[in-house]
Amino acid sequence: MSDTLVLPEGVSAEAFSSAVGELRNVVGDNWVFSDEAGRRIYRDPFSPLPDDQFMPSAAVSPASVEEIEKILKVAIDHAIPVWTISTGRNFAYGGPAPRKPGYIVLDLKRMNRILHIDEKIGYAIVEPGVSYQQLYDHLRATGSKLWIDCAAPAWGGVLGNAVDHGAGYTPYGDHFIMQCGMEVMLADGTLVRTGQLGLEGARAVNATKFSYGPYLDGIFTQSNFGVVTKMGIWLMPEPPGYKPFMITFPHEEDLSAIIEAATPLKVNMLIPNGAAAVDLIWESAVKVTKSDYYAGEGPLPPSARKRMAEDHKLGMWNFYGALYGPEPMMNNNWEVIEAAFSKIPGAQVFFERENDPAWDYRVKLMRGEPCMTEFGLMNWIGGGGHLNFSPISPPDGPRAQQQYEMIRDRCIEYGFDYIGEFLIGWREMHHILMLMFNRANEKQRAAAYELFGILVDEAAAAGFGEYRTHLAYMDQIAGTYDYNDHALWNLHHRIKDKIDPNGILSPGKMGIWPERMRG
Amino acid sequence: MSDTLVLPEGVSAEAFSSAVGELRNVVGDNWVFSDEAGRRIYRDPFSPLPDDQFMPSAAVSPASVEEIEKILKVAIDHAIPVWTISTGRNFAYGGPAPRKPGYIVLDLKRMNRILHIDEKIGYAIVEPGVSYQQLYDHLRATGSKLWIDCAAPAWGGVLGNAVDHGAGYTPYGDHFIMQCGMEVMLADGTLVRTGQLGLEGARAVNATKFSYGPYLDGIFTQSNFGVVTKMGIWLMPEPPGYKPFMITFPHEEDLSAIIEAATPLKVNMLIPNGAAAVDLIWESAVKVTKSDYYAGEGPLPPSARKRMAEDHKLGMWNFYGALYGPEPMMNNNWEVIEAAFSKIPGAQVFFERENDPAWDYRVKLMRGEPCMTEFGLMNWIGGGGHLNFSPISPPDGPRAQQQYEMIRDRCIEYGFDYIGEFLIGWREMHHILMLMFNRANEKQRAAAYELFGILVDEAAAAGFGEYRTHLAYMDQIAGTYDYNDHALWNLHHRIKDKIDPNGILSPGKMGIWPERMRG
Repeated sequence: MSDTLVLPEGVSAEAFSSAVGELRNVVGDNWVFSDEAGRRIYRDPFSPLPDDQFMPSAAVSPASVEEIEKILKVAIDHAIPVWTISTGRNFAYGGPAPRKPGYIVLDLKRMNRILHIDEKIGYAIVEPGVSYQQLYDHLRATGSKLWIDCAAPAWGGVLGNAVDHGAGYTPYGDHFIMQCGMEVMLADGTLVRTGQLGLEGARAVNATKFSYGPYLDGIFTQSNFGVVTKMGIWLMPEPPGYKPFMITFPHEEDLSAIIEAATPLKVNMLIPNGAAAVDLIWESAVKVTKSDYYAGEGPLPPSARKRMAEDHKLGMWNFYGALYGPEPMMNNNWEVIEAAFSKIPGAQVFFERENDPAWDYRVKLMRGEPCMTEFGLMNWIGGGGHLNFSPISPPDGPRAQQQYEMIRDRCIEYGFDYIGEFLIGWREMHHILMLMFNRANEKQRAAAYELFGILVDEAAAAGFGEYRTHLAYMDQIAGTYDYNDHALWNLHHRIKDKIDPNGILSPGKMGIWPERMRG
Repeated sequence: MSDTLVLPEGVSAEAFSSAVGELRNVVGDNWVFSDEAGRRIYRDPFSPLPDDQFMPSAAVSPASVEEIEKILKVAIDHAIPVWTISTGRNFAYGGPAPRKPGYIVLDLKRMNRILHIDEKIGYAIVEPGVSYQQLYDHLRATGSKLWIDCAAPAWGGVLGNAVDHGAGYTPYGDHFIMQCGMEVMLADGTLVRTGQLGLEGARAVNATKFSYGPYLDGIFTQSNFGVVTKMGIWLMPEPPGYKPFMITFPHEEDLSAIIEAATPLKVNMLIPNGAAAVDLIWESAVKVTKSDYYAGEGPLPPSARKRMAEDHKLGMWNFYGALYGPEPMMNNNWEVIEAAFSKIPGAQVFFERENDPAWDYRVKLMRGEPCMTEFGLMNWIGGGGHLNFSPISPPDGPRAQQQYEMIRDRCIEYGFDYIGEFLIGWREMHHILMLMFNRANEKQRAAAYELFGILVDEAAAAGFGEYRTHLAYMDQIAGTYDYNDHALWNLHHRIKDKIDPNGILSPGKMGIWPERMRG
């Protein structure tokens, strides 16, 4: 493959060339990526659209806030959009690629210092490039008794995931709730600090989420209002005990009963962690490939599903949770949990599983140990393409079942397997459809692209909104949050226009566009 | 007392009179308060400054969002600032009074519907005028198994307290963390809904704090960026057991050890609720008055303190916490808690207290039962004046002790009693000094006013910022959040100017002023 350089909209080749030269002066030649090979690092290799739809014109990787400030000045001077990424592993949602071709990627991977660990109060202050694996390794190497909470793949970024409202699997699974204090650079280079960090010489840093006046941290999440350059994140103290469990359920229609059982256990914190109800294929696909069970076209047929479930002692749904604390407390909770789930016919409980990499990696995740196992799902059909369709589900059995069946039926109609999980937080529940397709198969790619768009509209019509999405659907999903003639997005745009008047920061992120690129 | 009508700055008597007439057309004559008696309802009766410093020119009380929209239009047409209150009980911080004389108070007390209770997921949707007592009574009358978390006085507003970052005493004590979904009217009358409420017909309403795109709810807290007209708040399911406890400590210098013991118990959630370390006088003052122990001027002398402590079986510090859940779990936690605190010499544990209204009301508060007992503190010296000085304290013993002694010493120097408590959330800790003065004593009032200003500056110099404050100190405290030449407040002002360009909403709230009133 070779690609043609697409320049940012309205920017001449001379201006672009001059800008790239200026960026080289800021960060040095080694940290500006403007040739074809360099640009291609920043494509989305799993996209439902051709690479060129989201191909940057260049990337620049600064080492400090001072360098970011200079980069933003270059961007303003030449009206070039910059697309901020931290570790760039936001795969299934676009990875490191920008919303439109021609943007320059602002890659913060080099700013990867762990600035502070507070062992007593339990928090870290990190830069954007710090990965889960890095923070985990650091804590273990220094003898810390603090855990992290990580998203499934270890290479993900602590800061990037939290500001994208990501979730994990320990009791600290809601990453943005666990965030505490930020440093943000605005488009004009102004550095702002929130929380107690806003007070020079502050002593209560990163213990208090809210301080005095409006709480602004939220406006820098899932947005393009600033570049987050530092973040505090609370860390969980190592508990005196850990008891992960798995319960399998034999029927697809058991989901409703599972969620009905789980919701009161979650609301009452008897299951304290980010639990998950995971479908058969998700749990099988880290062990086997589709071709092991089916050589035909289209979704895995029921007979093959049955065989796969039996071979691997899996249910059509598989519930993972964990308990933490002293033995008697875990036992007390477990009694209530077991009583609730054992009412569902066919439920089978596991505390150990032999030769089961799916169990192994979930046991790790629920104690905050990063790994890369889940990425093995990519081998299910091969060909790399995958998209996450991520509607918010009410924590209500019949509604969750309705949402699942709606999506599953459309997947089957379009020839795809339903591969999904419900991540069950406290009261909130994220449903993730892993829509896999062979990117080399043009028909399949086009079908996946079309299917996703239909799912967005059908979910919205049924009252379900998404919490996060791939670049290709950011506008469409923004459009579903339509109360009062899209008053919320109009407000986003008012804020955007004021704090980034040149419209250089990540235009189009979550459907928020600067004035010059709207309409 | 009689007062002279002060008009809003730059508004002629004719314009004002015309505006009041228009307001009468909107809400009816009964709901515009523009005579002297009507205005005086909205003064701050406990202020450190004379009434006229914060006396509104009128008040208007709408019954619906449609009426708010019309009121804001009148305000814009005549350039009259409106100061939004919900139940108006924000006493010690200004009560219902506006930041400057002449504003019109927008009193939302009539919008007091409990719109929805979700028993299964555990949340309520309320309008601004709903008080703690009202929500509590409603839940009890309907047989609900949900608890509320209330601030100390029952008349406080559920919504108003949450958007002011208020705290309570159950495990749901961080009110803004427990907030989920908002409806907000902007200055131009646009109605915006956040969270899943932003999607017409949404099904996952008020279960998910964050939805898609920037999380904006925070900008409508402790701010003047909009009028919050509805709010979702999570409610705690009634636990199977409740075990409140109190531990008394004999010495003022024990605070350091108390916080050192409490912090790991809190971070590890062994004490799950909004706990408190309360000083001797706070706990005595709901039972006795100062004159029972001391007839002289100035702070209560050590000998009288000692006698009062003995009479009432109180410590110089008194720690309140509670456990919730099944008996064995509470017992397990209690063992750890007792071991930690019993290391402090002189610690005494209570599970019951006879004839102790202080214990009685704290037992109520820690199970979310509103009451008015704490307001009895006002009788300590009489004369009504009181201010809360509320610095954030790090959850660290020596630092908390340092903050306490700094403030105590200045109180004594200025002739006041130190009356205070540390509210201990999860990692955050709010220190509340109840600065009481006789408002009828001009010298005392002036001393209190001066002392508070000194405390703000000295706390900031030592690295401590406040989380909330009285009208009179809003600018001063905003000034202490000074990182990078006040970049945070500059950002607040940029947002303010954009979403309230006429500058009519609560000018000066938390030191945020519209452009026309700055500098």
